[in-house]
Parts: sequence; C-alpha cells; structure tokens
Amino acid sequence: MPLKDSYLLPAAADMHVHLRNAPGPISQLVTPMIRQAGVDCVFVMPNLAPRPIVTVDEALEYQRRLQALDPSVTYLMSLYMHESLTPDEIRKARKAGIAGVKAYPRGATTNSQWGVVSFEPFHDVLAAMEQEGVVLNLHGEVPSSAADGVTVMNAEAKFLPVLGELIAKYPRLHIVLEHCTTAAAVDAVRSFGEIVVGTITAHHLSLLVDDWSANVNNYCKPSAKSPEDRQALLDAVVRSNGKFFLGTDSAPHDIGAKKGKGNTAAGVFTQPYALGYVLMALEEAIQRGDISEDDVTEDALVGFFGTYGRRFYGAEAADRKILLTRGGQVIAQSLKGDGAEIVPFRAGETTWGVEWQ
Amino acid sequence: MPLKDSYLLPAAADMHVHLRNAPGPISQLVTPMIRQAGVDCVFVMPNLAPRPIVTVDEALEYQRRLQALDPSVTYLMSLYMHESLTPDEIRKARKAGIAGVKAYPRGATTNSQWGVVSFEPFHDVLAAMEQEGVVLNLHGEVPSSAADGVTVMNAEAKFLPVLGELIAKYPRLHIVLEHCTTAAAVDAVRSFGEIVVGTITAHHLSLLVDDWSANVNNYCKPSAKSPEDRQALLDAVVRSNGKFFLGTDSAPHDIGAKKGKGNTAAGVFTQPYALGYVLMALEEAIQRGDISEDDVTEDALVGFFGTYGRRFYGAEAADRKILLTRGGQVIAQSLKGDGAEIVPFRAGETTWGVEWQ
Repeated sequence: MPLKDSYLLPAAADMHVHLRNAPGPISQLVTPMIRQAGVDCVFVMPNLAPRPIVTVDEALEYQRRLQALDPSVTYLMSLYMHESLTPDEIRKARKAGIAGVKAYPRGATTNSQWGVVSFEPFHDVLAAMEQEGVVLNLHGEVPSSAADGVTVMNAEAKFLPVLGELIAKYPRLHIVLEHCTTAAAVDAVRSFGEIVVGTITAHHLSLLVDDWSANVNNYCKPSAKSPEDRQALLDAVVRSNGKFFLGTDSAPHDIGAKKGKGNTAAGVFTQPYALGYVLMALEEAIQRGDISEDDVTEDALVGFFGTYGRRFYGAEAADRKILLTRGGQVIAQSLKGDGAEIVPFRAGETTWGVEWQ
Repeated sequence: MPLKDSYLLPAAADMHVHLRNAPGPISQLVTPMIRQAGVDCVFVMPNLAPRPIVTVDEALEYQRRLQALDPSVTYLMSLYMHESLTPDEIRKARKAGIAGVKAYPRGATTNSQWGVVSFEPFHDVLAAMEQEGVVLNLHGEVPSSAADGVTVMNAEAKFLPVLGELIAKYPRLHIVLEHCTTAAAVDAVRSFGEIVVGTITAHHLSLLVDDWSANVNNYCKPSAKSPEDRQALLDAVVRSNGKFFLGTDSAPHDIGAKKGKGNTAAGVFTQPYALGYVLMALEEAIQRGDISEDDVTEDALVGFFGTYGRRFYGAEAADRKILLTRGGQVIAQSLKGDGAEIVPFRAGETTWGVEWQ
C-alpha cells in the first residue's frame, strides 16, 4: 500500500466544474455532489445551453440559482468569452467578484459554438482583464481540421503557440490552461511565470486513448492521450509547486447523450468522487513506476487539492477538514435524479470514502 | 463532379471479410450482402466465436456452411494462426485450396485471445507456408501497453519492425498486411517486393480519429488516424500498382454490442455498400485536394476493386460485370435480420447503386 490508509486534509477546491443550467434535472442532481467529494469551493463554467453566461448580471443570477441548490459551497463564477463582451463589463466583473473569463475555440467542445475564432477582436477585453486582474481560462485546443492536420490527438499541442502569443502580448494577464492532457502542455505551463497555471482533471490521471476508444463514458475533450502524456500529468500533480491544481472538468451528460444514435457527448463525470479518483490514479502510477511513492507527500496533496487553486483565485482558505479513507465507498453504477441519469467514471470500482470533520 | 456518373467494371473481390459463425443471425444477415456490393469473391476471416477456425477440416466445413447461405460467391478460406497448427496441416491446407493463415497479435482485436504472442514458436509453420505458397495475413498491430508506450494510435507503426523481421527471415513468404491505416504502413509495404502487399478498407479512406472518437459505429481496430495517414491510403488506392487492394474488414456487430453498458465492440460494417464507400471517399479526397481526379482512372479502380487481389490469391478472374451508378441508393439506417440489427457505415447517406449485368 504505497499511500496511507487515510488522510485528514483541508476541504478541497475544484477549479473547473460543469453544473449545467439551474434549476434543471442535471444541476439538481450534480450540485449537491460537490460536497460529497470533500469540496467546498468550485470554479463554475459558463457554457450553458441554450445560451452561455455572457454578462455579469447573468453570472450573478446563475450563482444565486446554484446557491439555492447548495448554499454551503463557494461558487466562483466566470463569463464566456463572447463577441458581446466589453472592457466595461470586465471592470464590472472585477467589482462583482467574477473570477474569470473562459475562452472556447469555436467548435472545439460542448457548447463552444459561440466561441473564439481569433483573439484579435478581443484585444480591448484582454487588456482590461490584464489591468483588472480577471483570469483568462483557456480551453487549450484548436478546432480539428483535416486541411491543417489537426485531430483530437494533437489539438492541444497545436494550441500552445497561441498560448505563447497571448502571454507575450499580455504579460501580466493571469491565465489558466484548463485540463492539460499532454506533456507538451505541462512543459509549456512550467516554462512561463507564476501567473500562468494549469488545471488537471481527475480522469486524465488514469485514462489513455485506449480507455476511451471503446468506452463512451470515458470520452471527453480534450481526449486522453499517450502513456507519456499521462505520466507528465501525474508528475505535474506531485511536483506542482503551485503551477497545477485540481479542475475536474466534471461534465455531466445524461446517459441518452452518451448512448444515442451513434454520436457521443464529450465529457467524463467525476464530481462526487473527484479526490478518490486522484488518489486511485496516484496509487496506480506508483505501482506502474510512473511516479515514486516518496513524491506523494501530504503537502503535495493539500496543495493540488485546494491550496494552490484557492491562492490563485484569491479565494478564502478552507475552514473545515475532510477525512479520506481507503476503500470507503463503491462508485455507483449510475446516478439517477428526477429526469436525469448519469454514469460516473470508473462505475462499480471501490474508491476512497469522504467524511466531513 | 470529378468522377464519372457510372462505371461498368468486372465484379469486385473483397479480400477481408467477417461473416461470423454460420449459420447464425449475423452470418445469415450479412452473407447475402456480399453480392449486393458487386462482389463475388471474398477472403474470409477465421476469428469465429466461441472458437476460431484452426484446422483445414473446420475451414472446409465453414466454407460449406457459407456456400449454403449464398452459393454464388467464391469463399477463399483461412486458418487462424494458433499453437495447434502444424507444418502437415499447412501442406494439407495447400492441397485443399485454403488461401492463407491469419495471425492476430494476442489481445489486439476482436476474438484475438488465442493469437500470437511471438512468431518464434511458429517457425516450422511459417517455413512450411513459405515453401507451400500459403499466404500469411497479418493483423499488423502490437497490443496496447502503457509500459511500452503503445496505444491504438501507434500500435500499427510499432508493428512494422516485426513485419520487417518476418520478411528477412522468410523472404519467399507471401504476406498481406491487412487493413493498413498509416502512411508508415503504406511506405513499408511499398518498400518490400511484390509478394508483400496490403489491403485497405473502405472506411479508412474517409475516417479520421475525430470521426470515431464520438461515434461508436465508426470505431474499429486498427483505428482511423490522421489526415496525413488517410491521404497515404487514398494515394495507395489510386497508385497501387498491385501492391494494395480492397479488403473491407467489414465487421458486423449487433447494435447491442455497439451501444452496451459502455464498452464498444470494434468494427465498422461496410459489406453491402463497399464499392460505393470507396468511390465516395475518392470523390471527397479529390474535392479536398488529397488526390487528383486524373489519378482515379478506370484501370486503378478495376485493379484495386478486384484484379490485384484475385491475382495475388490466384483466384479466377471475374466473369460478370457490375454497373456502379452515382446516387443510385441510400444507405440504410440499420439492417435488421432475424435476431440481429447492424448499423452500416455512413447510414442515411446517398451512395452508388450496384447492378449486376
């Protein structure tokens, strides 16, 4: 048993969650699962359907609807990088405590049809964000294009030059490269200063391309890639030094959207067991020899699970503790709510239990 | 319209088909679809469940069962490269007209659990095949292995050194590298002499990794890869010079095996529309600029669709003609038989009609 049997840690923060439109069948099912995971602070994605969150008022209204579902969680809100966004709205966002603006390359993932084609038209907005200290959250993929040789396998690596250009143009802009999936992305984030960080999901710490190729529940964007890429992510978790922290990208899709007439919605659902998945993946990585058991220090876990993310966003420190216990629960085969059914990642496996202290 | 509106060609040959155990719901549904495609000669895969075809007697018995389903097709039979195979059985196979022995790397694809771990123990069998002129059919992938950095994306490229070793050791052995999916495989086949050839499926001429990542009906082994790889396959079709010919790897799976509890059976079903898919892909490739319309000569089509494959296996030339007509039919949304339902590739699209002359 390379890890300890239990860990008493500060409550965690999950800096990339999809809670969907609220109230609604999926938001009602998944929002209460945040705390089940041992998490009390989340950074909420704005890519809602039928339309995304593009104004401060909409974000605050959405925040109130989420608070109604579970008032004990801190919801850090974001805006969708959209052509209607203005520098004034950025200043208003800053005053209202909106934490970031998420940029989706148009067509790259779920509800990205209103996204960014080029950052050029957003110059004034980005300059305002840099000045105000509003974070830029990047879905770091270029859209697939046969003409340009871009597929789901190299879409992230091909985005990295765009990241470099943004940093060169806006050197004081706080940037999160969301859900890093490649060694190249980890290397890039490490190569820039401390205001450029990366989030890492729970599922990318155990998945490879083979695991999603034949399993719709493991398919997401960005997709899981090679053993070398996975090893780089695991290394980033245990040697983060504040550059990488947890953002699960937990993406609930009704089972019908996963097993429809052929097309599969992209997204892996990890919300209620997020920390357990990470510990499982770390332990498996030790067994494979991808990382050393000496790397998995309690400091590394505390930092990756919450401290680093809270510090980056200026959120308050956790005031409660959670006890994680090996073998403490079995992952549900499916999670059913009123009008929604979601299959969680690694359904049926035994994972770590979570108790609030 | 870069291609002609119709082609009058010799009946085609499909040198890689899965007809499953016969009689059975799937074999009864798909075997009569061979001729619907304009094909009258097929090379039949031996990877049946619950156990593969490992003896000459089993192969001949299987051939009779297929003939009972459609006596108008020529079934070229194969054995499964299995530890029970002997040089005597190879000599018996030659006398009985068995065309080849299919080697599956153990664990690489459907029903490969009895397959080859190393070719070393098969030395006597391979030497007998070389002497007797029995073809070696290779599923050219090494099994995925995180420890060795092998995934579905590079499993074929990593197999190519094994191909080189086999050719060096058995220089007179006739070899088919089945269902090439990479530029590397095409280059390798071209680099060896004329007794080393490759088959190319219909579906790999249009699919990329993005097309199967979110669509279970497009998922197969080997998986479709990058735009550069697809372009190399298209080039191999129109500049085959006898080195590449059609082997659809048409793999019928009941809809339940495609949309089950998460795990998806690997295989794309192309049998009834095989030639139409190829023509659709060639036309799309011309439109993208991947190939030139001058490349798609009638000679190239005649060779790829049948002449080259028949010549390689020593099968008789076609004595009937088929008329392929643009826009002649719509691909069924699903194909239902007694106890089986299969979703064909590109369901619902308009493809080329086939009429026997």
